[in-house]
Amino acid sequence: MSEHEKDQSSKGTWLTYRPEIKILDCTIRDGGLINNHMFEDGFVKAIYEALRDSGVDYMEMGYKGSKSIFVPGEHGTWKFCDEDVIRRIVGDNDSSLKISVMADAERTDYHTDILPKDRSVIDMIRVATYIHQIPTALDMLKDAKDKGYETTLNLMAISIIQDRELDEALEILADSPADVIYIVDSFGFFYSEQIRDLVRVYSNAFEGKGKMLGIHAHNNQQLAYANTIESLINGVNYLDSTINGMGRGAGNCPTELLLGFLKNPKYKMRPILQCIQDVMLPLQKDMEWGYQLPYMFTGQMNLHPREAIKMRAGDKKDDYVAFYDQLMDQY
Amino acid sequence: MSEHEKDQSSKGTWLTYRPEIKILDCTIRDGGLINNHMFEDGFVKAIYEALRDSGVDYMEMGYKGSKSIFVPGEHGTWKFCDEDVIRRIVGDNDSSLKISVMADAERTDYHTDILPKDRSVIDMIRVATYIHQIPTALDMLKDAKDKGYETTLNLMAISIIQDRELDEALEILADSPADVIYIVDSFGFFYSEQIRDLVRVYSNAFEGKGKMLGIHAHNNQQLAYANTIESLINGVNYLDSTINGMGRGAGNCPTELLLGFLKNPKYKMRPILQCIQDVMLPLQKDMEWGYQLPYMFTGQMNLHPREAIKMRAGDKKDDYVAFYDQLMDQY
Repeated sequence: MSEHEKDQSSKGTWLTYRPEIKILDCTIRDGGLINNHMFEDGFVKAIYEALRDSGVDYMEMGYKGSKSIFVPGEHGTWKFCDEDVIRRIVGDNDSSLKISVMADAERTDYHTDILPKDRSVIDMIRVATYIHQIPTALDMLKDAKDKGYETTLNLMAISIIQDRELDEALEILADSPADVIYIVDSFGFFYSEQIRDLVRVYSNAFEGKGKMLGIHAHNNQQLAYANTIESLINGVNYLDSTINGMGRGAGNCPTELLLGFLKNPKYKMRPILQCIQDVMLPLQKDMEWGYQLPYMFTGQMNLHPREAIKMRAGDKKDDYVAFYDQLMDQY
Repeated sequence: MSEHEKDQSSKGTWLTYRPEIKILDCTIRDGGLINNHMFEDGFVKAIYEALRDSGVDYMEMGYKGSKSIFVPGEHGTWKFCDEDVIRRIVGDNDSSLKISVMADAERTDYHTDILPKDRSVIDMIRVATYIHQIPTALDMLKDAKDKGYETTLNLMAISIIQDRELDEALEILADSPADVIYIVDSFGFFYSEQIRDLVRVYSNAFEGKGKMLGIHAHNNQQLAYANTIESLINGVNYLDSTINGMGRGAGNCPTELLLGFLKNPKYKMRPILQCIQDVMLPLQKDMEWGYQLPYMFTGQMNLHPREAIKMRAGDKKDDYVAFYDQLMDQY
């Protein structure tokens, strides 16, 4: 065996067959952050059909937002994901594609708005939380679990959490009823070496607890896909992605790149391509997402993308230098 | 020390201080493959000044193409990089920015067209070669070295070279006069784990030979930057990049992303941003480069991007499904 052959004994290729691997497409949920969840039914249905036909495992439709906090009418229907609204798209969802919704800690009337599973077409509740909201998130997880759902816990903005705090948070989450715990790079800050370290930290924290890990990446530094496959190679099984990378700011890991990478024959590329061609390209004439310099700045500076989003929506959207100076002044 | 702290003992941060690290910006050379090297002097000068002011180490101006193979007039001046043409931009280049040109094996009259170093403003000759042209490349390296230049050897299209052949090629190159040997991902095929393996293979092959390694990545799978920093972390010191990722097809690793990543205070971001704003954005109205689905297909299928480039230049540039079907049929 030559030196080269020995070194090429890569895990990547066969690992991508792991039956535990799940693609969770959150196009409508993360994309909804661009347009305040105001998608037309036709668009959502096109995404649903493409995902169903491509063999993707989960489709996330939006949020379970509290109507006492968010006024219906001011926000699109996918901010609330009422049962009848989802059924308008998926019917009884007679397919292998599972349906998920996201519930933000402290912004969801979960006791009332999340129905018992046997009355809902939703399969999975994903609880999104900042670190200081974990006590609420734990109660939400218990509520969802008791009602019969699959559950995930998405701890956000971990790039601004101190190591010791993260350790303590993970210790608490280890005994939570979440089936999956997500590594969430909200600001698009991390690069692959840091992702490897985080996967190790999370894996160690949950050893023997029967939990899976997930990854949710953003493309501020053109690393969303890279960090997703790096996670996958290191044992993460739940992979968030969006069609054409659609998502707030710099967007997400593109579903089509993942499908091309994974060797599992259950996944089909062609329905996603057809969908991009038919409904994404027309939409991109009016909506912007994806890598742009202002998102790179906020990502590399470990900042929330909100100022970059504001800048791209204004009349100085191409004045990169002024925006860079502005951020550096704040630093 | 908590588990997390131990795991976070990352090499990445301090490694990026390594004084051996060099950024080689090949905007004009790789970008010239889009427009047949027909840049106006004003554009080239803007790139030169931006790179000089940003502390980038090398600027690649174009090719030393043979005038008996390529008819001047049919190709831009940067296909030939005559001494007086370069001097029109850089004068005597009284700066710390070094100048490189690329010479393709079997397409360069190197004996006559490459002047002795003491008569040239060029600092480095980069010899690009396919594996079967290595004997010619070795003679070109010797010629350039004897004339007084820094030299690199860029072995192209290694994703279609068999392991055993690559081992033999590297064994020969180990005793060549090249100062730097480049890992070249011509098709944008590799992902980070494969890059790590390749860096190890190259490092082992050149152990004790006093050579540096370089990386030249393409962005077909949104991995150009990811693979470049992965190489860097694993010991590669010469990093190819282009401003705004400009380059043939899916383009290259963006210089500005690298500058943001490297902690070396000699590098300045602002001149590059100003340059993008002033000269790149206007150019992009007429010239296309960067990640697009057709480049993803050729990258993932390990194919030369030429058919994708042709497709994007035609009147069915957004018919991804038809192009995907066409490639799958050939497969």
